[in-house]
Amino acid sequence: MYEMLKAAKAAKCSVSCLTSEQKNRALLAMADALLLNQAAILEANAQDMEKARGSVSTVMLDRLQLTPDRITGMAQGIRDVAKLPDPVGRVLEESTRSDGLAIQKVSVPMGVIAIIYESRPNVTSDAAALALKSGNVCVLRGGKEAFRSANAIVNALRSGLRLAGVTENAVNLVQDISRESARQLMTADGFVDLLIPRGGAGLINTCVREATVPCIATGTGICHVYVEKTADQAMALSIIENAKTSRPSVCNAEEVLLVDEAIASSFLPKLKSLLVDHRAANPVELRLDETASRIIDGKQANAHDFDTEFLDYILAVKCVSGVQEAVSHIAAHSTGHSEAIVSSDPHAIAAFTAGVDSAAVYVNASTRFTDGGEFGLGCEMGISTQKLHARGPMGLRELNTYKYIIRGNGHIR
Amino acid sequence: MYEMLKAAKAAKCSVSCLTSEQKNRALLAMADALLLNQAAILEANAQDMEKARGSVSTVMLDRLQLTPDRITGMAQGIRDVAKLPDPVGRVLEESTRSDGLAIQKVSVPMGVIAIIYESRPNVTSDAAALALKSGNVCVLRGGKEAFRSANAIVNALRSGLRLAGVTENAVNLVQDISRESARQLMTADGFVDLLIPRGGAGLINTCVREATVPCIATGTGICHVYVEKTADQAMALSIIENAKTSRPSVCNAEEVLLVDEAIASSFLPKLKSLLVDHRAANPVELRLDETASRIIDGKQANAHDFDTEFLDYILAVKCVSGVQEAVSHIAAHSTGHSEAIVSSDPHAIAAFTAGVDSAAVYVNASTRFTDGGEFGLGCEMGISTQKLHARGPMGLRELNTYKYIIRGNGHIR
Repeated sequence: MYEMLKAAKAAKCSVSCLTSEQKNRALLAMADALLLNQAAILEANAQDMEKARGSVSTVMLDRLQLTPDRITGMAQGIRDVAKLPDPVGRVLEESTRSDGLAIQKVSVPMGVIAIIYESRPNVTSDAAALALKSGNVCVLRGGKEAFRSANAIVNALRSGLRLAGVTENAVNLVQDISRESARQLMTADGFVDLLIPRGGAGLINTCVREATVPCIATGTGICHVYVEKTADQAMALSIIENAKTSRPSVCNAEEVLLVDEAIASSFLPKLKSLLVDHRAANPVELRLDETASRIIDGKQANAHDFDTEFLDYILAVKCVSGVQEAVSHIAAHSTGHSEAIVSSDPHAIAAFTAGVDSAAVYVNASTRFTDGGEFGLGCEMGISTQKLHARGPMGLRELNTYKYIIRGNGHIR
Repeated sequence: MYEMLKAAKAAKCSVSCLTSEQKNRALLAMADALLLNQAAILEANAQDMEKARGSVSTVMLDRLQLTPDRITGMAQGIRDVAKLPDPVGRVLEESTRSDGLAIQKVSVPMGVIAIIYESRPNVTSDAAALALKSGNVCVLRGGKEAFRSANAIVNALRSGLRLAGVTENAVNLVQDISRESARQLMTADGFVDLLIPRGGAGLINTCVREATVPCIATGTGICHVYVEKTADQAMALSIIENAKTSRPSVCNAEEVLLVDEAIASSFLPKLKSLLVDHRAANPVELRLDETASRIIDGKQANAHDFDTEFLDYILAVKCVSGVQEAVSHIAAHSTGHSEAIVSSDPHAIAAFTAGVDSAAVYVNASTRFTDGGEFGLGCEMGISTQKLHARGPMGLRELNTYKYIIRGNGHIR
């Protein structure tokens, strides 16, 4: 591990100085190399699948599996990154003092970005492409189930880098998939400039708690939709159905519904009809607070249900007295990801958007839009739920920092 | 402590929603209150001075002491902050998708900012003013030597807030000045949105190592000046004299000099003449590497000298083979604060500005300019030496984060 970190650190300078053209050429070569090495990647993946079968869920198995189509998709993903604007070297601010001292604030790469992730093999090529385009060296540590696949992918990507004349140490894969190697990355002070954990709440919390290197918490989403008493109820139902059921396993899916007491008796029966009674395939399990359970049938919610990222067809439901209680509940229980209000009252909307302290605050729209692609960033390395540095979807710019370059002619203070 | 943190957290919403006018009125009332309560502040300070005399250095005593002039200066500092533009509520980016969904990225306060600092009482009013102007609640924990002074200052500031109709819980002072209270702040997850340590390297390293709340490392400066072989040597001498001796106790002062071997035998004697032989009052102690000590007299440097923030009339001197060795030495020994090159060769300058990974990189100018006021930010909460979030001088904008506000009309994904 130490040797790899040393090599990664040594590669920083040459990677950060690559021109846009050099980076784009390398990205296209990486995409080509994925296709060229498809057979080896599929074989490695088959071994991973073989090993995983029986010990992981069907959903996990599906995430793990690669097919020629999926590899083509990964290659296309890299080509798409090549088309995005280069985030490095933008002059963010510029001024010349009256004494002639010229101050520029310029975007620069972070340096070495470490990414600890779980089983999806495509994260390997996505993360490598985003890191390279943003001028960063990456150190990837995937899950053990996908190790052979990730290794074959990284071998292919590195062969592409070599062909393009870029140091292969721009993309590195940790070979030791133990807890110890994750801990080494978290505490690799002086080697890792930024750590991004991508995965479940357990992984992320461990990183935030134990990392001594700079770390960005991503992606845990206990997202709320609040139906205010003036809401267009048909709109509210459509938004909730989308936020809860269109893809329940993702971080921007709704987990908690807050409803104004004043409309609960008219609204909740419609909700139950839509999400439970008329959903034969995947009915949503409602977990109701006391007020709600006096109005409709459903499981009684326990306190824990309002602090759980279900990632499933489950929705916790609570009745509130108004926007202030909704804002307070969200402050106490949200992970700071995405929250929505459905309302036609400008005052309630203003109180909600001002009061809710989350990365994305929606008015009359589904929380599902919190995504780098949907926000127009072109890509995404994860969704930050913290306030330092980046908040919400992290695109290429968020993988940069800045420095000041000050030019004088013998200026002294 | 817990009660104070709860009160601070509860005050977040009302402080973040203050208008610019309300904040400015409160700041002017805080400035007035400092002058109105001058007698009480001076009396408290006299008690601090009495207690500290004998147990702390003269320099420390001078930092601790308040006078009517210094209190007037503090009040003026607050008034200056009132004049700065409000950082909150700026629309940083804005777009409307083709489906009509409108996405705004808006600057918002962090929430509760905790500041752990040492003995200078004026930090108390500075930090409170910057926090309030940026829409944040602050929790201040000063050094024990200055506790009575800080307490009298905060009492005055809170009386000003009350008079202006703003919650006095916008500004809070930790009453328990133990190591335990510092540790409680560092781990006050859910209460402290940002921790800023201001002080010596020991305090900052402890915070960075032990904090579980978001933390910004500030102000440790092992700053380098590199004299490249094509440098105008008179300019280089003037820059070094300024960077080393104009105020050696501050973080942007030079600690290490790097000189190209090719010019060492002509340059170093001039350096010694200027910094040692012709400085009767405060001659600089030169700590020389082997090559330099073959050219001029001085103390032999040990390895530790190149990793020390002297904050004194001491300068470590090393000869290097050229810009690449200078950049490598800086990468290995710098704290990432400020570094300068003196050169007339565009290639060397380009290699230095691209290769040096510090907050501020100077070309033919003194490192002493790294400062919020000098950079035109109008003020400063500290100088960040990290890459996440803010780098270099932190003004009002750097005390904000952002959130996305997305407005739709029933939009679903």
